[in-house]
Amino acid sequence: MSRIPAGLQSRVMSAEQAARLITSGMTLGMSGFTLVGYPKAIPGALAASGHAKNLTLCTGASVGDDMDGVMAQAGIIKRRYSYQSNKSMRTLINDGSIGYIDMHLSHVPTFINRRMGGIHIDMAVIECAVITEEGLIPAASMGASDAFVRMADKVIVELNETIPLDIVGMHDVFEIGTPPHARPIPIVHPLDRIGVNFIPCPPEKIAAIVVTDRQDKSPSFTEPNEVSRVIGRNIVGFLRQEVEAGRLPENLLPLQSGVGAVANAVLQAFADGGFRDLTMYTETFQDSALDLLDRGIVLGATTCAVSFSEAAQKRFYGNLAAYREKLILRSQELSNNPEVIRRLGLISMNTPIEVDIYGNVNSTHIAGSAVMNGIGGSGDFTRNAALNIFATESIGKKGAISCIVPMVSHVDHTEHDTQIVVTEQGVADLRWKIPQERAELLIENCAHPDYRPMLRDYLAQARKTAKSQHTPHDLKQALSWHQRFLETGSMK
Amino acid sequence: MSRIPAGLQSRVMSAEQAARLITSGMTLGMSGFTLVGYPKAIPGALAASGHAKNLTLCTGASVGDDMDGVMAQAGIIKRRYSYQSNKSMRTLINDGSIGYIDMHLSHVPTFINRRMGGIHIDMAVIECAVITEEGLIPAASMGASDAFVRMADKVIVELNETIPLDIVGMHDVFEIGTPPHARPIPIVHPLDRIGVNFIPCPPEKIAAIVVTDRQDKSPSFTEPNEVSRVIGRNIVGFLRQEVEAGRLPENLLPLQSGVGAVANAVLQAFADGGFRDLTMYTETFQDSALDLLDRGIVLGATTCAVSFSEAAQKRFYGNLAAYREKLILRSQELSNNPEVIRRLGLISMNTPIEVDIYGNVNSTHIAGSAVMNGIGGSGDFTRNAALNIFATESIGKKGAISCIVPMVSHVDHTEHDTQIVVTEQGVADLRWKIPQERAELLIENCAHPDYRPMLRDYLAQARKTAKSQHTPHDLKQALSWHQRFLETGSMK
Repeated sequence: MSRIPAGLQSRVMSAEQAARLITSGMTLGMSGFTLVGYPKAIPGALAASGHAKNLTLCTGASVGDDMDGVMAQAGIIKRRYSYQSNKSMRTLINDGSIGYIDMHLSHVPTFINRRMGGIHIDMAVIECAVITEEGLIPAASMGASDAFVRMADKVIVELNETIPLDIVGMHDVFEIGTPPHARPIPIVHPLDRIGVNFIPCPPEKIAAIVVTDRQDKSPSFTEPNEVSRVIGRNIVGFLRQEVEAGRLPENLLPLQSGVGAVANAVLQAFADGGFRDLTMYTETFQDSALDLLDRGIVLGATTCAVSFSEAAQKRFYGNLAAYREKLILRSQELSNNPEVIRRLGLISMNTPIEVDIYGNVNSTHIAGSAVMNGIGGSGDFTRNAALNIFATESIGKKGAISCIVPMVSHVDHTEHDTQIVVTEQGVADLRWKIPQERAELLIENCAHPDYRPMLRDYLAQARKTAKSQHTPHDLKQALSWHQRFLETGSMK
Repeated sequence: MSRIPAGLQSRVMSAEQAARLITSGMTLGMSGFTLVGYPKAIPGALAASGHAKNLTLCTGASVGDDMDGVMAQAGIIKRRYSYQSNKSMRTLINDGSIGYIDMHLSHVPTFINRRMGGIHIDMAVIECAVITEEGLIPAASMGASDAFVRMADKVIVELNETIPLDIVGMHDVFEIGTPPHARPIPIVHPLDRIGVNFIPCPPEKIAAIVVTDRQDKSPSFTEPNEVSRVIGRNIVGFLRQEVEAGRLPENLLPLQSGVGAVANAVLQAFADGGFRDLTMYTETFQDSALDLLDRGIVLGATTCAVSFSEAAQKRFYGNLAAYREKLILRSQELSNNPEVIRRLGLISMNTPIEVDIYGNVNSTHIAGSAVMNGIGGSGDFTRNAALNIFATESIGKKGAISCIVPMVSHVDHTEHDTQIVVTEQGVADLRWKIPQERAELLIENCAHPDYRPMLRDYLAQARKTAKSQHTPHDLKQALSWHQRFLETGSMK
């Protein structure tokens, strides 16, 4: 199978030549999600050349350092949309050099497809495995690539020859349409295929093809430590109780699991938890999920992207034809869509930065001002899941920070949205609990013992000073823990 | 047409007798939404008798004083779920006598249908117009009644003989099902009927029928003042620009409009704005909407309930057969469903208590602690709308309060969710704006001139002190305006 149709061979060019098609002030829609499937040649060429400045860079979610890091450091990015997790990018965002808009991942393609607020993608830059007469077969991540290709004036394809051709058939691309002509998404099971296996793209829209052979860099997740393992066991124990109480089926409901070490550890715990015949409907698919798939504990999954260690990556690409039967790659407009999430009734599991005593969750900001990564899909999943779980260690920075605080310094998920909070200390089930009950559960079950007396003191003081006993706060002290951390380096 | 099937005549009894079927500790699911269609006899009988205490009262949304007020004052309510707007109820919630859980309206029936967290409805009490062999024809509000009837052990019907029989056929009831067996909601236009016109209810489930003749009390909305009218014109002007820029169709997209005087004034402005062939998909339908329907400016609407003045009520009930062609009453599981809201691409319009400089919105709490009404459907609509608008006067309490503040004291809608903020001062279009741009727009376009210098000072101070320029906050001062208001009665 040829990766490029005969009629398009003439558009093959070097990364340097293709980069010249991008000019200052353009808005770029680039592929990539959880460090997988992002362009690896054009970003470097743009950075080296420096001819195009003041770029607006829009991606589905996080991309590798050889894209976000390289372009940020070259000083050619003016604005960055929707999600990032790169150290250089984050530094320049927080020092005010790069403007950053942190969005719900489901909103990104939806808003672009609808030209919401006049947004226009000048150029899409998409890593692909194959180009056909009908369109593009992407890498092992979908992100918002379908929306970028649909709405961009022109498309530059990075054709990555290291991606095995067996990836053809793994994607599922479905055009929802825009109001007043949008249509229902007919997914009623995580493994329902509803569309085509390529991103539609007329050949004349392809402005350049750059052939590459660079593989995705594997993310470096820290190995699960004992604390993460305890968190995982606490979650599994809680779900086991829900099954025993007849509130969840034996094989649970489709799982969504966030990114990172805690998420990885949590899924590992499922293997030991005795669950079987699980499914997943998620935006990222990590090593531990692949293990569950290999062991037959997870029957199949929808994901927006894979995100593997080097060893898992090798296993995955070596057996693509087999995984194709059990794994569907969908765009974030589908993987994160409230319609499907609510219908399937997911169990969502995400990692907060901090949770306050009333259940408000901060997923994005340190001490109110500095952004970390972004909200990602956590809002899409949490609000619409059948059961949502926020899992974190109870303390950070060796105890200098409590993850349970009087008032979060930034709210990404409101008290109306949070159901279950889990730390290594225990589980707080906030469902049908009034604010003061939530506070007691979070303090006694989830906070670290070192911080419990301080939290009890805050609550007592708030009860004494507040004009209302519904959600008592002492506004003078509510953010004092963060202020103390800024001044002394510790919340204590 | 008889309102009660022959086989059920034996279950007709007095309110006092029926109330005896309710015992202490029960969880009650009662009909009612925006003061319409709530039980009017049982609550009084329960309050007078006092035999049943520690009740948990769950409703779709707000109900009349002869229900919420009477039951709250009788001291028989221990917990209140999902939404209220009653003075007595609010007072007892804020003094800690009644526990209150403030929920997204779309969550309520969904969680009840799924028995989320083990919730169980012991008794449903539903106001109806007619009982048939198949089920119940409710009053002119659906709320969460279908879920209550489905999941309750038993049902008490308040059969209100003042409701004209022409209401039969106005409702549209559809069972979504629960995961893993939930199904798509096949609504692609606000006027699509997809279900049956009654709430299915086997006759044996009906424990009592109480015949009543009390009409809904009309809510007392203040007449739109000049400020509300300017807000309305600002919104219409903004939408007109969106149409001219080709970003919205000539007849816009289906409108959702919140409750109250500002919302009423805004819809009035649409009549003068030259828009035609509009549709609505909303949770409440007020006088101004009825005017638009009468004048043919609005072609038709889905609503969860009507909420009319006495004059509009008379017009509505006097012409039910005609309105039935243009108005569909659906449960809040449908009217507020993210699936349908995102698909139809609504223009949502809601009223906040306050908005902060980065676009976080407080819809529920005064100075962080005291709850006002509740979040209602504003989260369902805002998050999923094609275009969301928050409209409020820029000041409150004769200038003692600024509705644009440094940091909101409670977050109901996050910075990720807010698009357009409108006051009588102007419009802030926050779409694709980074936090500091949002702050400048909100201060210069929306804040009252009296508060602009103070807001500029705060922003400058935050930029100076914060460790990050992404979302600069000065945590020492962020909530000081609310603290000052608590201490002095003014934010100034």
